[in-house]
Amino acid sequence: MSNTIGRLYRVTSFGESHGRCVGVVVDGCPAGHRLDLEHVQAELDRRRPGQSSVSTPRREDDKVEVLSGVFNGVTTGAPVCMLVWNRDVDSTRYEELRWTPRPGHADYTAEKRYGGHQDYRGGGRFSGRITAGYVMAGALAKQVLAATHGIEVLGYTSQIGSTAAPDVPLDQVRENTERNPVRCPDPEAAREMERNILKARDEGDSLGGAVKCVVLNVPPGVGQPVFDTLEGDLAKALFGVPAVKAVEFGAGTALASMRGSESNDPYRIVGGRVETASNNMGGVLGGVSTGALIELTVTFKPTPSVSKPEKTVDLKTLKETTITIEGRHDPCIVPRAVPVVESVAAMVILDHMMQRGRVRQVLGE
Amino acid sequence: MSNTIGRLYRVTSFGESHGRCVGVVVDGCPAGHRLDLEHVQAELDRRRPGQSSVSTPRREDDKVEVLSGVFNGVTTGAPVCMLVWNRDVDSTRYEELRWTPRPGHADYTAEKRYGGHQDYRGGGRFSGRITAGYVMAGALAKQVLAATHGIEVLGYTSQIGSTAAPDVPLDQVRENTERNPVRCPDPEAAREMERNILKARDEGDSLGGAVKCVVLNVPPGVGQPVFDTLEGDLAKALFGVPAVKAVEFGAGTALASMRGSESNDPYRIVGGRVETASNNMGGVLGGVSTGALIELTVTFKPTPSVSKPEKTVDLKTLKETTITIEGRHDPCIVPRAVPVVESVAAMVILDHMMQRGRVRQVLGE
Amino acid sequence: MSNTIGRLYRVTSFGESHGRCVGVVVDGCPAGHRLDLEHVQAELDRRRPGQSSVSTPRREDDKVEVLSGVFNGVTTGAPVCMLVWNRDVDSTRYEELRWTPRPGHADYTAEKRYGGHQDYRGGGRFSGRITAGYVMAGALAKQVLAATHGIEVLGYTSQIGSTAAPDVPLDQVRENTERNPVRCPDPEAAREMERNILKARDEGDSLGGAVKCVVLNVPPGVGQPVFDTLEGDLAKALFGVPAVKAVEFGAGTALASMRGSESNDPYRIVGGRVETASNNMGGVLGGVSTGALIELTVTFKPTPSVSKPEKTVDLKTLKETTITIEGRHDPCIVPRAVPVVESVAAMVILDHMMQRGRVRQVLGE
Amino acid sequence: MSNTIGRLYRVTSFGESHGRCVGVVVDGCPAGHRLDLEHVQAELDRRRPGQSSVSTPRREDDKVEVLSGVFNGVTTGAPVCMLVWNRDVDSTRYEELRWTPRPGHADYTAEKRYGGHQDYRGGGRFSGRITAGYVMAGALAKQVLAATHGIEVLGYTSQIGSTAAPDVPLDQVRENTERNPVRCPDPEAAREMERNILKARDEGDSLGGAVKCVVLNVPPGVGQPVFDTLEGDLAKALFGVPAVKAVEFGAGTALASMRGSESNDPYRIVGGRVETASNNMGGVLGGVSTGALIELTVTFKPTPSVSKPEKTVDLKTLKETTITIEGRHDPCIVPRAVPVVESVAAMVILDHMMQRGRVRQVLGE
Repeated sequence: MSNTIGRLYRVTSFGESHGRCVGVVVDGCPAGHRLDLEHVQAELDRRRPGQSSVSTPRREDDKVEVLSGVFNGVTTGAPVCMLVWNRDVDSTRYEELRWTPRPGHADYTAEKRYGGHQDYRGGGRFSGRITAGYVMAGALAKQVLAATHGIEVLGYTSQIGSTAAPDVPLDQVRENTERNPVRCPDPEAAREMERNILKARDEGDSLGGAVKCVVLNVPPGVGQPVFDTLEGDLAKALFGVPAVKAVEFGAGTALASMRGSESNDPYRIVGGRVETASNNMGGVLGGVSTGALIELTVTFKPTPSVSKPEKTVDLKTLKETTITIEGRHDPCIVPRAVPVVESVAAMVILDHMMQRGRVRQVLGE
Repeated sequence: MSNTIGRLYRVTSFGESHGRCVGVVVDGCPAGHRLDLEHVQAELDRRRPGQSSVSTPRREDDKVEVLSGVFNGVTTGAPVCMLVWNRDVDSTRYEELRWTPRPGHADYTAEKRYGGHQDYRGGGRFSGRITAGYVMAGALAKQVLAATHGIEVLGYTSQIGSTAAPDVPLDQVRENTERNPVRCPDPEAAREMERNILKARDEGDSLGGAVKCVVLNVPPGVGQPVFDTLEGDLAKALFGVPAVKAVEFGAGTALASMRGSESNDPYRIVGGRVETASNNMGGVLGGVSTGALIELTVTFKPTPSVSKPEKTVDLKTLKETTITIEGRHDPCIVPRAVPVVESVAAMVILDHMMQRGRVRQVLGE
Repeated sequence: MSNTIGRLYRVTSFGESHGRCVGVVVDGCPAGHRLDLEHVQAELDRRRPGQSSVSTPRREDDKVEVLSGVFNGVTTGAPVCMLVWNRDVDSTRYEELRWTPRPGHADYTAEKRYGGHQDYRGGGRFSGRITAGYVMAGALAKQVLAATHGIEVLGYTSQIGSTAAPDVPLDQVRENTERNPVRCPDPEAAREMERNILKARDEGDSLGGAVKCVVLNVPPGVGQPVFDTLEGDLAKALFGVPAVKAVEFGAGTALASMRGSESNDPYRIVGGRVETASNNMGGVLGGVSTGALIELTVTFKPTPSVSKPEKTVDLKTLKETTITIEGRHDPCIVPRAVPVVESVAAMVILDHMMQRGRVRQVLGE
Repeated sequence: MSNTIGRLYRVTSFGESHGRCVGVVVDGCPAGHRLDLEHVQAELDRRRPGQSSVSTPRREDDKVEVLSGVFNGVTTGAPVCMLVWNRDVDSTRYEELRWTPRPGHADYTAEKRYGGHQDYRGGGRFSGRITAGYVMAGALAKQVLAATHGIEVLGYTSQIGSTAAPDVPLDQVRENTERNPVRCPDPEAAREMERNILKARDEGDSLGGAVKCVVLNVPPGVGQPVFDTLEGDLAKALFGVPAVKAVEFGAGTALASMRGSESNDPYRIVGGRVETASNNMGGVLGGVSTGALIELTVTFKPTPSVSKPEKTVDLKTLKETTITIEGRHDPCIVPRAVPVVESVAAMVILDHMMQRGRVRQVLGE
């Protein structure tokens, strides 16, 4: 299912960076949910280009339109089609780059995958712009998760370049993340990250980073071993976000150098309920939720568009050459990726909640 | 598809640690492949318990049996069912642990997922033993990949505990990996890893680590954006291997602290063909193969079975208690996980080669 | 996959009868096909309401809009979103019918399936109007089939009410079918059918009928046993067309009273190629194409909207009552269903041609 | 998913007529069901060859073996692998028929589909013998349906050759069907059917027929429009049974010649509940169950194996020739197909009950 993901909450993505629109069809959304369109719009606004000094100057209104699946403000159980129209499209530069693939971009692989028929303007189907669709589908998922189980999805920037944010309490995440343009809940680290980004931008370069995402209130017992694990489905969906190169759960790669006596999360009783005293496992054991926070970290590579000259080849002459990319791009995509990671996580968690029978196809039944 | 994975090369896993057998049904295997059963057996032997001082003393012959899908030694295009019977089963210990979930194991989540009906003996369906099935399906995939495209899948131990192996040339990987019990291609690191494992074992503890896997000769243009990316499908399948907690491609988490001018792999012409001068992207851009090595790293948490007393709870009384796990287990699962990671990678790569039309459903057509 | 069908050529349907639009996302359409939009429009026009004396007076332009997946007039391999806007919507009548389900319609089952949240105006998601989406997806499939293999899909009305058309040669089907409003290739039967429909309409009643569909030039060896048979996938998709109640292949139900010596299609050599001397099997054996014509017959129940008083119940009071349906509807849906049956057949055949590797994901590769 | 069917109750079939075994893996079976193995065996016995004068003399014990997924007699939620071993295999005749495809069999299409690699002995993967797997998966489904909702699946022979059974009350179906070798609930028709079969057999010929199947107690609101309709999924699965050529619901093909005022099933109130006064729709409207009996009719073509000389071709020389099939076969497959149709219907209904949330993944939750 190249452009569809999910088993019961199924998201089909369509649209291109410089085409008419970017959209999504959500099939399997529970019937009976009162759609909060303002919330969908607010989520889109968090992802929107041109929102701050550290993002691309491309300007798009990104106003959500609902084409189907909602009647009298309530989801009907039919497919929900939502889209945003593209407006501020500037395709002039892409003709000249047509045969010289930009390093780090998908230009060359798109050529090989689609035999030269791909829409190459602005990255076409490989552009980060398609994640506007993910955000609409994810916003809807967040609403259903919140309304049915009080499930909350919280993402934030945990690293940009060499600056890693210290762990902060969740309250601080809620309070601080949206208060700075890099979406880092630690104010000091946030300031350093912002400086780093502006410096990289001024030098015609770009930065990578990481987004951490936690999901609260997922009940224990959610996940479908052995192949549709919670980790596996989250990871698969997250690798559908452009620029993601690593996905970790709990202590992640740090587990390689730990001992079992240290990494095992002991069980204890708190308020009459079982919980784990630590969360090295990121809330998942055997592919199934433990009831602890789902914790994951997503690594984003640096934005491949840099203004420095880069070595590439001419695909027509098969000669080596050098290109310099101009145009509008984010010097660091991570801040705008935060709502995208949250959205993808929400889509997958809702799908699994439905698979486990914890969210019904008809709400209130 | 909980226990089935893949779109065209589809693997269905069945069996439990202490049940009658562990097996697999491979649906969609190309017709016309002469099955090399000795190779399948050799791969199983690499995964088999009891093979060295650093693995569990449980002894299983793990002799592959083919129940269907092969006629006159050649695959027919019908489902290939393969299994190994369980023999050395010792379930005595598991009754007493029935209500006190072992930290780091899936005991508690299995209880919550399957409502107490799960086969809890030896981890049941959550045991690493089920990966014997993955290895049979993966061995078949490796054969088809090698026969049709010379594709080679090479895995090795890149880290155990705090010992990380230095990068070594692929020739050395081929030559050295199977020469030591930890499957590390660097002899010096291998010796240190072995010492670490034995030390941890003697202290009643366990170690985590990492497996690196490279896939050679995958042509450019393989992968199905935007959701069935090569990375996403590899990651999803790899998280189906018990104990995996992180999956990285190329430079992985290190990309977070790189700059774009540094991380972008420049293109060049070598022998009249396009290639990248570096491989920070791990051979994948936009979810599609570049033609470079596919490179991935999988983090394994420490074996959750440790002989030290651990805090847990009694699920019947909801009181806190302490358990000590005895029994047979690997002090570090990583060396035996190497063929498993390779197998899973091979399954996914073959599936994607078929999706891309690079391997036909009938060989030689 | 409630609203998505197909494995490689995947069609996702969205929209409602009285919503904003009816549309479709086609994922997996081969890259490199020059889209003939006029042909898509012509197909829509064959299905359009208000086209003749025997169809509903609802008037819709049904002008196709392409939102994605086509660049410079050629398919890119990205999802193709196409839609038509709804314009002539008259929802006034449906409020009063809200709690008295119309016999033969899906009102009652929609209520039970979607818990009362369904869009009940004009049948909502259960309306025949959604097949406009099928026609767009099917037109695209027809084009690819014709361009790559000269495959032709020919449908026609074979029965309306008690009037069954005699078998006619394919040339006559091509020539005559579009020449009369009932789409029957036998002119005499066509006249009788038209009379029957007008008579039923004048009596406030409706008629059922059957559509026969043949597919020419499908090569032998297409189909995926044992569960994804050509017949099974065609039937499943055809039952997705509102009002279909039976699907037959070849001699169909008549095979029940035949003998094997009579029903078996003997093989012979014609022009150096194997073919069957008869086609009782409808071109499929063991779920796989034989190379003969694919022949299928689809039974449509009478339009459930009739102007006569009907017995039903009030769902709020659980009392029996009587309703009379006014409003615009087709006295017999069969003539307009012809392009729909063709479209669905084309979608499925293309999907199977792709699964069998007979149509590549990138044309011309 | 060629050899896997179902979304939540997923059945994977494997094995060949003359291979080692015929089996099935059921993934997604609810946890917590106490498996009644004797019932599974009894169902297999109804399908078993050699059970009466009107069936093939091939003798197979067909004793079910459970390889996984059941612990202490109860399903665990893990995949249930069940198989029967092949014993009475006589493959001698098939070598000589290797290059002369039998009319009406899948020999030729198998050759074209699998490039000559198929197991051609006894029809291999295309043999009716593989339905032993369907029966095991269906028996399990029947048990879960009965235990959770009192759902009953009743099949019977409604036609053999030109003899059609009159409609009989369900009590009579339950009482009479298993009392005669043709499984027809009308004793008089049964005697005539038996005579017809024996006559055809003695003349070296074979007969077709039809199986009717009703499903009782399916609640209203089950089915997943628009593409995963109850009819569509039932039909698709039924076409996976060898020799099926038509599937009808309710009045089926007879609806073509009815009027809407006649075919619409009026609603009424009985015992405070909504029901339909007739059932021309076969219990399905808009792809969703109405709460009435699900009624379907499946047409089986005559057994293609006849002892009369038949025209075919030599695939190596491309010359026309004549063959005479000897060997063991059923002169009419219909009586043994009754439990197969029931099983397939049960699999699909359970899958849809689970999709609708009416049967949970963990029973008793």
